[in-house]
Amino acid sequence: MKNKPTSSQHFRRFVLGAVSAAAMMAGTLASAQEPVQPIKAHRVTEPAKVELGKKLFFDPRLSRSGFISCNSCHNLSMGGSDNIRTSIGDKWQKGPINSPTVLNSSLNLAQFWDGRAKNLREQAGGPIANPGEMAFTHDLAVDMLRSIPQYVAEFKSVFGSNKLTIEEVTAAIAAFEETLVTPHARFDRWLEGDTKAISAQELRGYQLFKNSGCVACHNGVNFGGASFQKMGLVEPYKTDNPAEGRAAVTGNDAERFSFKVPTLRNVELTYPYFHDGAADTLAQAVDTMGRIQLGKKFSKSENADIVAFLKTLTGEQPKLVLPILPPSSDATRRPQPFE
Amino acid sequence: MKNKPTSSQHFRRFVLGAVSAAAMMAGTLASAQEPVQPIKAHRVTEPAKVELGKKLFFDPRLSRSGFISCNSCHNLSMGGSDNIRTSIGDKWQKGPINSPTVLNSSLNLAQFWDGRAKNLREQAGGPIANPGEMAFTHDLAVDMLRSIPQYVAEFKSVFGSNKLTIEEVTAAIAAFEETLVTPHARFDRWLEGDTKAISAQELRGYQLFKNSGCVACHNGVNFGGASFQKMGLVEPYKTDNPAEGRAAVTGNDAERFSFKVPTLRNVELTYPYFHDGAADTLAQAVDTMGRIQLGKKFSKSENADIVAFLKTLTGEQPKLVLPILPPSSDATRRPQPFE
Repeated sequence: MKNKPTSSQHFRRFVLGAVSAAAMMAGTLASAQEPVQPIKAHRVTEPAKVELGKKLFFDPRLSRSGFISCNSCHNLSMGGSDNIRTSIGDKWQKGPINSPTVLNSSLNLAQFWDGRAKNLREQAGGPIANPGEMAFTHDLAVDMLRSIPQYVAEFKSVFGSNKLTIEEVTAAIAAFEETLVTPHARFDRWLEGDTKAISAQELRGYQLFKNSGCVACHNGVNFGGASFQKMGLVEPYKTDNPAEGRAAVTGNDAERFSFKVPTLRNVELTYPYFHDGAADTLAQAVDTMGRIQLGKKFSKSENADIVAFLKTLTGEQPKLVLPILPPSSDATRRPQPFE
Repeated sequence: MKNKPTSSQHFRRFVLGAVSAAAMMAGTLASAQEPVQPIKAHRVTEPAKVELGKKLFFDPRLSRSGFISCNSCHNLSMGGSDNIRTSIGDKWQKGPINSPTVLNSSLNLAQFWDGRAKNLREQAGGPIANPGEMAFTHDLAVDMLRSIPQYVAEFKSVFGSNKLTIEEVTAAIAAFEETLVTPHARFDRWLEGDTKAISAQELRGYQLFKNSGCVACHNGVNFGGASFQKMGLVEPYKTDNPAEGRAAVTGNDAERFSFKVPTLRNVELTYPYFHDGAADTLAQAVDTMGRIQLGKKFSKSENADIVAFLKTLTGEQPKLVLPILPPSSDATRRPQPFE
């Protein structure tokens, strides 16, 4: 049987409770007051599915050539992007659009710049079968996987069936991609109450970012990814890139040049910027955005402050053990990249 | 002060000593009797240099396009090779020769199929500047690295100098590559005395491998890599591949079609086989080798036994955390892969 608490214990509990409630309220309020929220670490609930998805993400045999994997253009050593204006596809074809980062992509309202895939599963099937990207077919990809005993066993173990379908392939890749969140950015630590996590300049940059209207589009937990917006609201955006944006999906001409707002998380790592990759540096990107979206000309020091703030959005990168891929069997079709 | 041992303790020590000496002798003799030896795990003595080398190995910015890294053709998810007949180079150029595995390459007498690089440092500089591979120059590679503050700091910390030279780049890559050994293959465990580590069929395969003469070239710790040998000793090897082998290095016509004997370690993972990548499967490779090097026609069951043995040479693959690459700075030249 427990002892009854003394009155002094009662008092101490009351004080401690009041202090922690106040701290919690302060924390809650600080976040609630801001139009952006910190990212939470991902909790893996299906580790075998994630592990299988990781293998598939790194497996170039999902491409016609045997050379291009998901990781080629969404390189997890480089912020989940390829740091090239537009990606290199099968036979060195020039891609039509800048490769968006896979990091935190599960937090976006839809996938691709024009949002034509409603989720990561739907997205994952796209590049495999796109003649300008991995240039394979879903049937050939599935045939390849079915010819590899270790893959067959893993799919069976994860999905409980002997079928091995493209839906299972994309579900596993999506499960892996859902783990690719980047918590604990310095800015998130500041949001959570660590006032020393960012510098005075970085804080100035954030205030300018909010007060100038950047945050109207780049908001929420992903600093973007939550809406489609016109590129060139105030002043038309000049580009050779033929991408039409949202209009290509909806057929609604009013949505021409409307693109999914890209996340600003890890933006320090995901250069070059915009759907056409035309901005090489953050300074250029901030300058262009101010001009064409907000009708503002940021001064040199304002630009530097915003850039400094943006660099506080680099989160903890996923710590991944490089997967060892199951070897092809004698029955596995050998890629002929030069044919 | 220690107690003097009793005579029974003396006796026990003597017995244990004799038993372990006998075990050690048995182990030594078992290995010594074989023309092949187990691989020892690598001990890292310069972890910061290895870590830097790993970043460089995975960094596609060492190529003109910003797309091809060492790991593209020596993919550590795929046995340190690309599993393509001949590699894909800058602008999708068809490579001249099959990409040899980087695994255990530190154990080879020289590097490249023709041994034109005397060590891994010398090798590492080759593909970066080869117009058909990464198509960069050493000067541009060094300029790129010098423009990235985190790389500059790491080179300084590892090499104690502000210079950042191509020699430092290749030394770091080589230091990383030296860690890429694959100990504890089932066959090595058998060599070390674990008689149950391989099956009866696999043991038959090994005996056939020895008795048929395969081991004349594929010997030592790396099951190859210790000599140059003519491809087509008994019967000429037919190929469209123009590689001349050792003669291209020495100018000695007698060494035409003489190539470095490839390692058989992890050979299950490093298909397709031969310098031209013409053998898709181990069964084909064993058949061809028997015919053109030994003048032997292996029966179907002999071939299967040798193949089964070869699969016991798959060692523990390096367990690598994917490196996070230092981001480019505003001063870093942006790659233009399509120009």
